[in-house]
Amino acid sequence: MPPERHRRRTQRASGPVPRAVGPVSRLPSPAGAGYFARHTVTALAAELRAGRVSPQDLAEQALAEAARLEPELNAFVTLDAAGARAAARRAAEELAAGVDRGPLHGIPVAVKDVVDTAGLRTTMGSRHFADRVPDRDATCVRRLRTAGAVIIGKTATHEFAYGPTGDRAANGATRNPYRPDRMTGGSSSGSAAVVAAGVVPASVGTDTGGSVRIPAALCGVVGLKPSHGAVPLDGVYPVAPSLDTVGPLARTAADCRLLWHVLSGRTATGPGGARRVGWIPPDVIHPAWPQVADTAMRCLAGGGFAVEEVTVPGAAALARAYHTIQSSEVYAVHADRMATAADLYDEEVAERLRGAARVRGWEYVRARDLRERSRDAITALLRGHDLLALPTVPITAPPLGARRTDGVPDVRTALLALTSPWSVLGLPAVSVPAGLVDGLPVGLQLVGPAGGEDLLLAVAQELYDATPETDLSVPSPH
Amino acid sequence: MPPERHRRRTQRASGPVPRAVGPVSRLPSPAGAGYFARHTVTALAAELRAGRVSPQDLAEQALAEAARLEPELNAFVTLDAAGARAAARRAAEELAAGVDRGPLHGIPVAVKDVVDTAGLRTTMGSRHFADRVPDRDATCVRRLRTAGAVIIGKTATHEFAYGPTGDRAANGATRNPYRPDRMTGGSSSGSAAVVAAGVVPASVGTDTGGSVRIPAALCGVVGLKPSHGAVPLDGVYPVAPSLDTVGPLARTAADCRLLWHVLSGRTATGPGGARRVGWIPPDVIHPAWPQVADTAMRCLAGGGFAVEEVTVPGAAALARAYHTIQSSEVYAVHADRMATAADLYDEEVAERLRGAARVRGWEYVRARDLRERSRDAITALLRGHDLLALPTVPITAPPLGARRTDGVPDVRTALLALTSPWSVLGLPAVSVPAGLVDGLPVGLQLVGPAGGEDLLLAVAQELYDATPETDLSVPSPH
Repeated sequence: MPPERHRRRTQRASGPVPRAVGPVSRLPSPAGAGYFARHTVTALAAELRAGRVSPQDLAEQALAEAARLEPELNAFVTLDAAGARAAARRAAEELAAGVDRGPLHGIPVAVKDVVDTAGLRTTMGSRHFADRVPDRDATCVRRLRTAGAVIIGKTATHEFAYGPTGDRAANGATRNPYRPDRMTGGSSSGSAAVVAAGVVPASVGTDTGGSVRIPAALCGVVGLKPSHGAVPLDGVYPVAPSLDTVGPLARTAADCRLLWHVLSGRTATGPGGARRVGWIPPDVIHPAWPQVADTAMRCLAGGGFAVEEVTVPGAAALARAYHTIQSSEVYAVHADRMATAADLYDEEVAERLRGAARVRGWEYVRARDLRERSRDAITALLRGHDLLALPTVPITAPPLGARRTDGVPDVRTALLALTSPWSVLGLPAVSVPAGLVDGLPVGLQLVGPAGGEDLLLAVAQELYDATPETDLSVPSPH
Repeated sequence: MPPERHRRRTQRASGPVPRAVGPVSRLPSPAGAGYFARHTVTALAAELRAGRVSPQDLAEQALAEAARLEPELNAFVTLDAAGARAAARRAAEELAAGVDRGPLHGIPVAVKDVVDTAGLRTTMGSRHFADRVPDRDATCVRRLRTAGAVIIGKTATHEFAYGPTGDRAANGATRNPYRPDRMTGGSSSGSAAVVAAGVVPASVGTDTGGSVRIPAALCGVVGLKPSHGAVPLDGVYPVAPSLDTVGPLARTAADCRLLWHVLSGRTATGPGGARRVGWIPPDVIHPAWPQVADTAMRCLAGGGFAVEEVTVPGAAALARAYHTIQSSEVYAVHADRMATAADLYDEEVAERLRGAARVRGWEYVRARDLRERSRDAITALLRGHDLLALPTVPITAPPLGARRTDGVPDVRTALLALTSPWSVLGLPAVSVPAGLVDGLPVGLQLVGPAGGEDLLLAVAQELYDATPETDLSVPSPH
């Protein structure tokens, strides 16, 4: 690519290229957000086919936004300008030749750095794998490429995707686009930050106990955790295999759905007309909570659904079972490495792994038994309601590095409290932006029956369509 | 039932009633063995239908043999004379009315005391449940009753079926019919002893890591561990649910097969013509081993199969995985009881449970992972061979209470070494009597693919049919 072309693209990095397609989130974008904060995949796909923008334009735009915002966000482990440009050129040639791979064709995306990309460094956010270059794509990456997506780089992750805060990794903490002194949440920290900041319109993360949903909520984007098993895990570094999933993040649920279909290899099914929503009232109390819950509930109320309060018996026990299951499985992955190279881990990650090693076998067995028993109870609950709703995270983004704050005795436990039960059950869940509290995003979480991803994403989009932008920002009491 | 009738039956307890149908095992029976050591289920079924014997005759015979031999064997926890007589009377009435429930109709059987029998005490061999009377039959018991079998009592078990020695239980050790100073093996100690001693022609046991096969081998009877999941486990007290199975014991493989079909609810399938057998050579060395292996191999060689030596990579690792899986699962069953009533356990059982509690979650996860990986390797091995063969137990019955002997540093580990790997894999396996070493029985173990029970039992019966009685008894070197 000729240097002047590169420069030209770079120069218009934060300007409208080629034109605004309208706001794509009801949340006000973070200050200084890039081009893709204002352009949905759906709209860009139309622009591409109308010839008003090229895959190369979009790739250059994404690379330029990444370069501009990276000092603030620290959201990428690796940018792949050369690979992105080559993929964009191929996408353009194909479109010109009449080969249309669908809505992701020519769209820049970013992929979490625990997912293998052939020929492109994949580090797990760790020093152990700082120089590792896989020779094969993960199946989900292959599917993205087959759909014509242009991968511009690998996004930051909490080290080994083992942590919901997103601020411990070989390459340092990722910062929240809404406030750089706050955490993004994790572990898919970079994938959420780059979408929120408008560097790319969509990204891929992984979610074990909330690792897509938590940063999606704290960064104000849409994130889907699919049903366990719905997206192949080969080439994805494991956290806890019985919990791990791969899921998309985007500015809108409609865009998320486009990625979901590609990642899962499924075709769209009808939304199914969800009308009965079970609202799970909060049982976690601390200062930020009432505003967070109110914001999430107001977002839900805007959808015109029949909302009924429900209780999920044993949700707290499921969150504890999550810890037991995850701990046992994650240490099984890391035991040998902890024995030989413990010093290469981030100190906090290593300490948490040592704690994980102490969980007993019989506790793991009981946690798995609870999982099986609880599935029946939830299945019954989901017969009476099309989906369940609750806040994604009971708090807004805590300060970077914080492990306890005023009223939050354990930040990690709080972050995971409302997402991890659904992970234990293997159910799909989506986090959608519900509004701002003190200028920080709040997520509404929708949970559905196994295989209910399309339903969840359709409802999420309905909520978005139904909610006027001005309603969502809750004034700060301070 | 009139008392004189009872007395009459009792008096002929050790005599031929109504006539001998020929030897039913190639092994010499233990000294003083009862009536059913000489009569197969198959032969008795014909006698019943010819009217030469009645269900009541057989029930009384079994009750009388039990009464006669119990002081020596300690093989029953509960005898149910009243229930057995009532069931025998019903069986007789039905036969008289032309209702024929199949080959078990009117046949006396005994059931391990971890399997629920409605209205009949079921203790798990423990003090915790010394007075427990279930109100429902286990499914496998219901199937036996539906097939017309007459349950004469509940057989001794290692406490909570947690131990391969069969000599620790609230009601004391069961003794080997071949030598009362030797253990039966366990945990289905009573079920093996009563068949070996001719108290009943068949019985039901449970097998978690060898609990049917080990006592079958040490007591010289046939015992089948079915594929995991083949017989319902409801109403069966768990040891380790991912390993537990229910299986039959009998003097011949043909009889075992009759019970297997009833317990599993399956109908017979053709034997499939097994011809290629993989012999797994011993890798456990101690004084008794060469004779035990020779005896098992000579039994196999008599069958006229194409026998080829094979190695099972990682069998020792599977035996270790067995310990990890079983420990984690068994403590999950007993944790609450250990917290509140540890003093009611047999001392050794409690101590072993405390050890089981110390297994780590990540070790359990790795053991389950090994199980999954090994399944593929064994499936490949079983594509080249119809079945695998090896000794059931590398030693003959150790002295009662022995935990180490000359050359056997750990009796429990030795007993389980060759049976537990197949339990981890969920494969069916049968132990058939192969001969005597120093007057004590040796078992040959046949292992097949999942669902291969009929094949195994057909091959076991072929071996029996092909082997002259005198060939099997290996002279003692002492």
